Amino acid sequence: MSKPRIPVPTDVPGIRGLMAFRPETAKPMLMLAQALLRDPLPGSTLTRGERELIATVVSARNDCVFCATSHGAFAAAQIEDGARVVEAARRDPKSAPLSDKVKALVAVAEQVQESGRAVTDEAVAAARAAGATDSDVHDAVLIAAAFCMFNRYVDGLRAITPTDPAAYEAMVERILRGGYYGGSSISAS
Amino acid sequence: MSKPRIPVPTDVPGIRGLMAFRPETAKPMLMLAQALLRDPLPGSTLTRGERELIATVVSARNDCVFCATSHGAFAAAQIEDGARVVEAARRDPKSAPLSDKVKALVAVAEQVQESGRAVTDEAVAAARAAGATDSDVHDAVLIAAAFCMFNRYVDGLRAITPTDPAAYEAMVERILRGGYYGGSSISAS
Repeated sequence: MSKPRIPVPTDVPGIRGLMAFRPETAKPMLMLAQALLRDPLPGSTLTRGERELIATVVSARNDCVFCATSHGAFAAAQIEDGARVVEAARRDPKSAPLSDKVKALVAVAEQVQESGRAVTDEAVAAARAAGATDSDVHDAVLIAAAFCMFNRYVDGLRAITPTDPAAYEAMVERILRGGYYGGSSISAS
Repeated sequence: MSKPRIPVPTDVPGIRGLMAFRPETAKPMLMLAQALLRDPLPGSTLTRGERELIATVVSARNDCVFCATSHGAFAAAQIEDGARVVEAARRDPKSAPLSDKVKALVAVAEQVQESGRAVTDEAVAAARAAGATDSDVHDAVLIAAAFCMFNRYVDGLRAITPTDPAAYEAMVERILRGGYYGGSSISAS
């Protein structure tokens, strides 16, 4: 496997390795992930699992193996019958066992992945017709946009991407227990 | 002009209007902009103007008029003969009056704009050969990645994009005086 493009701790895979190199930017990035994927968002009707699912679909479309695998695992752990749902959503969101609202928000997120200018009135209207709130539209767009950043950061600097599923299981345990950012530490552990 | 896709204050253009809707995510996004574009970054050899220039070129490639115009103005205000340099860099970075190092880092940023996976060993090696540090490579990649987020957020939600140059001049004054985030306020003003 090719080495990262900057020096990172060899025992810290993925984005956390890059973050160890530059803590100045790690802190706001982790705070953003915490806000978008775990903290309460006023007006939102999306669960944590659904927010992670949007992140997963966008990461898969950006071909970011590290982010699609890790956030796919975080989504699966927080959705009923999650492994099957996430796999189906990665293959084809339209036919996956998701609510019409989540399907429509995923479709908006897929447009954002392409470009901010690719978002259509029709896709947003379909999401609203299926019950999406202003907050849901906002959050789906920003989750998709943020993962267009995270994915490019990870692959642009060629972060370490574990091939052992156990590495991702350890991340699931850590995120479900402590979240992305608790304010107490931005260490890579 | 089409209206934003979510309710925003009519007197707050651009990304700040969206941020007024969702302060929970505004704070880390502004902190990230402050860290990437204004604060000291250990190991970096890039000036504030050069950091803004990378943001401008990426925003222009994403067709984000608000971000390309505003950050183009921020870059121009912090680079000698800035208006001419920024215009030339937006037209064709390779022939613009930039150092070889900045040209090479802009080239890396342009690859990131396409995809994290589009970054080549050759482009990174060229940047290093021209004097770029590990930090410069990191920061160019993350500035480019972050603007792939900011641009999609602005256009995906159809933020208000002023056509009056005076609106952007007011932003220049505010950013040069107070930065993106001083820790004291995340208000839209």
